[in-house]
Formats: sequence, structure tokens, C-alpha cells
Amino acid sequence: MDRNRKIVIIGGNACGMKTAARLRRRAPSADITVYEKGTFVSYGSCGFPYYASGAVKDYRSLIGGAGAIRDAAYFASVKGVRVITGHQVVAIDRKNKQLQVLDMQQGEKKKCPYDTLVIATGGIPARPEIDGLDRAAGIFTVTGMDEIMALRTYVETNEVKEVVITGGGFIGVEMAEALKEKGLAITLVKKSDKILPALFDEEMSLLIAKYLQERGVKILVGSDIARVVSDDSGKLKHVVTDRNETLPAGLLLITKGFVPNTELARKAGITCGESGAIEVNAHMQTSDPDIYAGGDCVECTHLVTGQKVTLTLGSLANLQGRVIADHIAGDEAVFPPVPATTIFKIFDHTACRTGITEKEARENGYDYVSVIVPGADKPAFYPGTRPIITKLIADRQTRKLLGAQILGPGDAAKRMEIVATAITCGATVDQLSTLNLAYSPPYSPPIDNIINAVNTVINKMNGLAEGVSPLTVKQKFDRGEDFIYLDVRSRAEYKRMRIDHSNVMLLPLGNLRKAGKQLPRDKEIIVSCMVSLRAYEGCLILKAMGFENVKFMDGGLLAWPYPL
Amino acid sequence: MDRNRKIVIIGGNACGMKTAARLRRRAPSADITVYEKGTFVSYGSCGFPYYASGAVKDYRSLIGGAGAIRDAAYFASVKGVRVITGHQVVAIDRKNKQLQVLDMQQGEKKKCPYDTLVIATGGIPARPEIDGLDRAAGIFTVTGMDEIMALRTYVETNEVKEVVITGGGFIGVEMAEALKEKGLAITLVKKSDKILPALFDEEMSLLIAKYLQERGVKILVGSDIARVVSDDSGKLKHVVTDRNETLPAGLLLITKGFVPNTELARKAGITCGESGAIEVNAHMQTSDPDIYAGGDCVECTHLVTGQKVTLTLGSLANLQGRVIADHIAGDEAVFPPVPATTIFKIFDHTACRTGITEKEARENGYDYVSVIVPGADKPAFYPGTRPIITKLIADRQTRKLLGAQILGPGDAAKRMEIVATAITCGATVDQLSTLNLAYSPPYSPPIDNIINAVNTVINKMNGLAEGVSPLTVKQKFDRGEDFIYLDVRSRAEYKRMRIDHSNVMLLPLGNLRKAGKQLPRDKEIIVSCMVSLRAYEGCLILKAMGFENVKFMDGGLLAWPYPL
Repeated sequence: MDRNRKIVIIGGNACGMKTAARLRRRAPSADITVYEKGTFVSYGSCGFPYYASGAVKDYRSLIGGAGAIRDAAYFASVKGVRVITGHQVVAIDRKNKQLQVLDMQQGEKKKCPYDTLVIATGGIPARPEIDGLDRAAGIFTVTGMDEIMALRTYVETNEVKEVVITGGGFIGVEMAEALKEKGLAITLVKKSDKILPALFDEEMSLLIAKYLQERGVKILVGSDIARVVSDDSGKLKHVVTDRNETLPAGLLLITKGFVPNTELARKAGITCGESGAIEVNAHMQTSDPDIYAGGDCVECTHLVTGQKVTLTLGSLANLQGRVIADHIAGDEAVFPPVPATTIFKIFDHTACRTGITEKEARENGYDYVSVIVPGADKPAFYPGTRPIITKLIADRQTRKLLGAQILGPGDAAKRMEIVATAITCGATVDQLSTLNLAYSPPYSPPIDNIINAVNTVINKMNGLAEGVSPLTVKQKFDRGEDFIYLDVRSRAEYKRMRIDHSNVMLLPLGNLRKAGKQLPRDKEIIVSCMVSLRAYEGCLILKAMGFENVKFMDGGLLAWPYPL
Repeated sequence: MDRNRKIVIIGGNACGMKTAARLRRRAPSADITVYEKGTFVSYGSCGFPYYASGAVKDYRSLIGGAGAIRDAAYFASVKGVRVITGHQVVAIDRKNKQLQVLDMQQGEKKKCPYDTLVIATGGIPARPEIDGLDRAAGIFTVTGMDEIMALRTYVETNEVKEVVITGGGFIGVEMAEALKEKGLAITLVKKSDKILPALFDEEMSLLIAKYLQERGVKILVGSDIARVVSDDSGKLKHVVTDRNETLPAGLLLITKGFVPNTELARKAGITCGESGAIEVNAHMQTSDPDIYAGGDCVECTHLVTGQKVTLTLGSLANLQGRVIADHIAGDEAVFPPVPATTIFKIFDHTACRTGITEKEARENGYDYVSVIVPGADKPAFYPGTRPIITKLIADRQTRKLLGAQILGPGDAAKRMEIVATAITCGATVDQLSTLNLAYSPPYSPPIDNIINAVNTVINKMNGLAEGVSPLTVKQKFDRGEDFIYLDVRSRAEYKRMRIDHSNVMLLPLGNLRKAGKQLPRDKEIIVSCMVSLRAYEGCLILKAMGFENVKFMDGGLLAWPYPL
């Protein structure tokens, strides 16, 4: 590329700064400028919940990589990149290839030419219309460094005790956990009938909600905030829901998702997609090939559905920054479709997912198989073994995985990486069932949870096993259907924990070959145990005895998302 | 399959019992018998080190899956499988399809017919010729349940304080850790010049040795045990090496690898391969299609080299058992080539590897690139972040990964699973550089260690970066070569830890653009820092200034395997 090409980047966070740093390595003499309207650049916004909770004590660690504060001086001396903070790009003149830039402190506007432009303007938190919202102090969103610092200061100075969070996506859940860890009382208010509806299927969402509730987070689903009420000094006192419930709240946190920040691009006539974000090609170029865009303001292609989606993921913003820089430097760099992998910590639990949910598989017309397979993340004999619950969705036609959702106190993250890698590589379940993973007792059971779950998929695909979702079983109970819920655990296990219902019958697996023949042959039998392995074996035994209407409950009691 | 087919399995551990359990699910009416010469079946032999250390207190937990002891009664009632312990199969009469079985307690032999036979006889620990070995008490190998229980009892009853372990493969290292954790003084004696020579390249092996030594394990490489000396009661007192060194030892543990237990198969005329193990096809059938074999007694095909190898891995034994059962049941089940993934814990460190080493890549004539990339396993700001060191080897021709070795106190296991999955799926480094992994600060940095390492591979492949192995740098120092080792860290970092040598020069990265021009242009410059990122940037800056003979040291000081 041209030695003195002038490259201007709008936005100094993940995608913007990654582009700048990589480009400097690729093009030693290029003239690289970054405009950032805020005070800080290159901060770890995914660390905001942990700054809010106090786990990250000093805000400076969020902007310090490897010991050095990444400010304008650092980028100038170490990276050879000109970073100009407190400056907002207000217009792009594509014809003359120049920007109009507002110096926010001085109030002056100036012109700035570019050869190549990178738009990395991120997203803006959606802000609902709520009566009183603009007049009360103590209303926050998760936007940038300044705001998260203000939030923590507000909590501490005003001795906030109760927080209401509106929105139950993953940022809402992360913030609920973080502020609960800080010792605050949390109520999560979610308009739809469950939390995390876009990321998890109902039974998995219910399990996450159950766990949050066990840890003291209150959850109100099917509610929204109607108005906020402040005290005489203007500080938030409580919020009122659309069901007229009053919730005391020293702070209201709005986490209703992010809107791609595309105003600048739209005004300049750059094409935005139906998703609302900037349309880019595989090289991250916008409809104007001299203008690239990346991060939260652009569309991604979903690997499974092929649809355009917006994903608010710092990891992708970084990967895109590298692709943009490499393409500017002359490589045929490509940012491919992605499976939309997401992970978050909830106290000592992990929740993660990739690909599509069962609901999406159904809506998109796939002929799919889904399984829920709980299991210990290490051999039972090894100290500190903890369970995880794995849900997989796979396509009967291609025998490829479509999606996964994994939860639990055990090592869910590791299994998610296996699935994310496998989905990206287009692996079939048959390939995955013989994966040579890294086995040793401190790390995993000899047959890893993922392989075990994949084998259950294969059993179902090949007609060797038939499962029923816990949601369906619950409906059958609720509707008073006549069926047998056959618990094949031991009596001791049954005494400790069980579903209490007149349809429930205990018959330990070891007795099933003998006593099974007494079971009625005209009723549906749903076999269950703790993790659905003995239940599966129970089904096979009963089928061998001639029972026909026999299934097991997916996931067993460990994945039962209702109170026991 | 035939309803009453008689299936006999020889060997009641991982592969054998998995075959039995899966086969029962597939073939409800088949007649399944398992002969096991020992007392126990279905035990977790990979848990032996943790039983030896005392982390697993009760031996029964090694034979209890999900709460129940897996003995003959359990398999009879729950699985419908006949398990006969204390019986050794001594001959296979293939013509008449019957076995000769020795009842080891009664001393009687009987005949047992089969329709389908499965050989899962495992491996036998190699036992070296050492003078005095057969006469002394206190000599152990890691063989089966009985022996590991005897080992722990011996240590406890005889108040053993010092243990010598001969053999430095992964079982030797696992046992060294385990017995050190039990409070014993450990000396690891290894005949070759480094530990783990088959699994890790030299610099990684040195890093593992360094860590073991820091934790108090003594390592003697290039030595072998010449003789053992016992006291008057016949108990081991000390061992003498071939260098005539006397090592006090209350116990000698022999971990010189395993020999596939093929005697029975060989006597029956079943083909064994050059590896010494039983040859099997993709369905795990031996040269006699009615006889299957699996587990440590068979050959596997290495995914990368295509060569036949023997692998002592409980995970594969289980996977093979499933394939055998499914193939017997009529499926076209296949056990594919595998990358030979291995992992073990060393105190609070993890060491793992997959594929081939750099040494193997060189010996097999690959045109390869190798990188060593250390890095934190989470963002620097997140509490509890720990480093891992990732070595990747990739093929320039296909741009696929050939192998990986990962070490450190950080989460190496997760990254190994990504690589093992990727190698199995045949992913290219270009595909891996944009993997949408599960990012959130409690789990990983925004650009995961694997992606970072893959990007370094790509940089090297594309000629953007040139690295030098720490082994080469050490040789240069030792040979007194005239070159500059340019440390571009900060002065404070340099003061804390550095290589002390007259060739070393400190010039922090932030000053390099200004002060770099004073560096001599006629000397080779090897730039280094902590993790080789700043060193890489330093190289680019110097190259942009016209320096030509500039490289960075792979892995930086964090991967420097020599004393500092």
C-alpha cells in the first residue's frame, strides 16, 4: 500500500484500537489517526460488571494492558498511532474524503482528510420511554468507562441498597450478579415471560433463573417499568411496574440491549441492513469500499442460519479489527460467518451457548434432534467434581450440530469451546463421538460430557433412544394426563429429592428386569433418574420386555427446571 | 444380529466393560460374558496417581460410578452382563471358536464357546533388567488396582520417605507429583537426556522439568538404575545408578512405559503390527473378523502422520469399546485416526499436547512453522489471571495445525480441546484465527491464547515475523557468538528478572523509535520481552528503520527454559 496513506479510525475501543495497532505493524509508515469522543480509549468494556462489583478495584486496570496505561501518549510512543480523545466525528464527506470533527472541549469544528476510513462507533444502549426517567438521578445504562465509574460512585456515595435492573439479556444478568456480589438487593424486571429469551431455550432459561433466585436475585418476568419516582432531591426512590407493583430502588439500571451506532454512517449514505447495523462485505468494507466498519455497529452473518445479525461481543470486535487492518494492508483477509458464541459467569456458575436454540431450529424448519445431558465434569472419584448440563441441537439431514447451551458449576466453558470450534469446522456428530480430547481425571471424565451428549444425539437420530423434554413432562403433570413417571433411582436417592406427584412410581433400575413386568402395558411410561443415563437403560430394558410406549425424560432431575 | 449370539470379552476394564455395557443396550438378548483375571473390573486406572497421593481416599470410589460399586453383582442385575473375575483366558481356539479359561483360584481349566470375541487385555508395564530387582521388596509398577493398593499400603506401613521413579514419561511424572503431594522425597531418573521426550519438544520438556524441580522433585536425566540394594529384611534401601550414584529409596517405582498385552492374540495367530500391538481395521476387527480388539493392546492410526502407534489412553479405550459394540450390533461404526492428545496435572500446573512435536515435524520432512506464545489466560484486569505457554506447529503447505503443546498454571486444558478438535476437523490456521470462542473476562482474554498463537503462526507463514527458538539463543550465548540480545521491556521489569550476559542490552519499546538508530547495523539483533509481543513490535520498528538482521525470541522470558 501507499506509504503515506492516511487512515482515520472513528472510535477508540476494541475494534478501532485493534485496527490501529495491527495496521501499524503491517504498514510502518502509514499515517494512522483515531478519533474518540470520550476520555478513554482501548478499555475493557466486558470488564464493566467486575468493576461495578468491585472485583476489579481500580478503573485504571481496565485500560492497562501488560502494565502500561493505554492512553494517547502510550499509543504515540509505543504504537506510533495518533489518538485524539474528546473529539467527535460529526460528518463524513465521502466525495471529498474528509471528515468534520468536533473538538468537544473547545466547541470548534475542523476538517480532517482521509484515504481510508474505519467506522468503529459501537452501540448505544437502548433507552425505553419511562415516565420520569429524565428527571431522576440514579438511572444508568452500561455505556462506557465514564458511566460505569459514575455508577459505582453513585452506589457508594448514596449508599444505594436496592437496585432494579430492567432487561434480562446477558448484560442484565451479568450486572445483576455483579451488583449482588457488591451486597445490593437486586430485582431483575423482564418484559418477556423469561430471561435470556434470545440466547437460551425455555428449560435452560428457567434453570438459570432458578439459580439466580437461589442466590437471592429477585426476578419479575412479564413486567416492565412504567414509571420512576424520585425523592425531593431528585434521587430515585422507587420504580413502579406496569402491573402497578412498587419496587424500592436507589438505582435503576437499564439493560435493554444495544442499538448499533450508525447515525454517522447513515447520514453519509452508507448502506445499513435490515438488522439496523452497517452492512459490510467479507472484508469488512461498507457500501463505500474506502470505508470499513467493525465492532458493535456492523452486521455479522450467522454461521448456522446465514442470516444477518448484530452481536455485541468484544472478541469479535477485536477479530474484525485485525481483518480490517490486514485487508487495508493488501491481504485477502476475510471475516467469516460466526456461530454467535456467548458466555457469562453467574456467581460460581457458568452459562454459555453457541449456534441456534431449539426454538430457532423449529422456527427455521430444521428436522432436528435435541438432547439435554447432565453429567459430572470429572470422574466421580476425583475431588471437586461438579455437574454441568449440556443441551445440544443437531440437524438430522446433515448430522451437524446446530447449537449448544451449557450450564452449571462445572467447567462449561471448556465444552463450549469444543462445540464452537466443531460447529465452525462443520463437524458431524459422528466425527465428534470419537474426538480424542485431553483426558485425565483432574480435567474430565474418560468420556467427556460433550462426547456423551453427542452420543445421545446419535442414539436419538438412529432411533435407539426417545426422550421427552422436561417442559412436556411438566405440562403432562399440569394437565393431569394419565401416564407413569417411573423413577429408576435408588430408594435413598428418591428420599433425598424427587418429584412429588401421584403419577410418580419408584422402581430402582437393578429391580427393573424382575419387577418391570408388573407395570401396566396400556399407559405411557416416562422413565427418569438423576442424569437420564439410568433412565435410558431403563427404557431399553422395558422395550426388551415388550413395552412399547416408553421414553425417558431428557436431562433427568438434575435438569428439571421447576421447584422440587 | 442373531438374538442369542454369544459374545465374550477378555479383560474387564475400560474397553472391555464399555463394550459390554454398550452392547447390552444395543442387543438386549445377546449373551455377554466378561472374563477378568484380576479381582476388580471397571476401575478408573487413570485415577491411580490420585489414589496413591491420597487425594482419592477410598479405593472403592475408583470402582464406583454414580454411587454404586461396579462389581459382578452390579453388572448382572443392572446391566445384564455376566462378569467372571479371577479367570484368565489362556488360549483362543479360533477354529472351534472356543476359549480355554483358567479359574485362577481353583486352578481348573474349562472351555468356553464364543460367536464373537473381544480382546481387551490392555498393557503390561515394561520391566527393565536391574540387578537385585526380583529379590527386593518395595519395587512397584503401575499395573492394576491390586498393585496400586499394595503400593500405598507399602508406603504407609513401612513409613517410606524416599522414592525413586525410573522412567520420565507421563505416568512417571504423574506419579512423581502424586507421591510428592503425599509428602515423599522424589527422585525421577530418566535414561534419555530429558523427561517426556516423546510428548514434548526440548524447550517445553525443560520448562516442565524446571517446574517439577521448583516444587522439590529431583530429576536425574541421562541416568539409569543399575542395581537395587535391600536391607537384611529384604526391603529396598537404596538404588545405584549407572553413574554409580547412590540414591536412598524406600520404594522404587518403574514407569518405563507399557507393552501391549498381545500374548494371547499372538498365540492364536492374530496379526500384530510393527508397533507390537494388535492390528485392527477401522471397525476394530483383528485379522480374524469375528475377533475384535481395543484399548491399550491395539494399534491406533496417528491422525497427522498416518503411522501406526500405541497409545495408553483410557479415553480412547472407552471410545473404542463403543465402536466395537456398535459394529457388533450391525452399524458401520468406525474408530478414526486420532491426534494422540495427552494431558496431565503437575501440582497446580497443567501440561498437555496433541498431534506431532516440532522434532517429529522435522523428522517427517514437513515444511513447518513453529511458535511459542505465552500469555495470560484471562484479561490482565481480571482477578486470578494466570499464564499459559502455547507452542503450535503448523504445515506451510496445507496451513493446517500439526501439533500443539500447552503448559502453565493457567487454563491450558481448554485451549488443548480447541486444538484437538481443530486438528481432528482439519481446520486451517486461517479458519482458526477468526474462531468465535466463548469470551468473557472470567474465562479468557478477548483474543484467546489459541487465536493469538495461531496469528503468530500466520505472521510467520506470511513472512511478517521471524522468530528464534530459545534453544538457539541459548546456544548462541554458550558459543560466545557476537549478537545483540535486545530486551525491550521497561527498566523496572528488567530489574526484577533478566538474562545476565554481556550481549544483553536494555532499550524499552517506547524509546525504540528514537534511540534505535544508535544500534549497530552489522550485528544480528534478537529482540526479546516477557511474552514476545513487544519484541515482535520491536522487530517491526527496527525493520522499518532499515535494520535487516532482526528477529525476536520465541516465547520471551516467560518461556525461557533455563535458570534466570
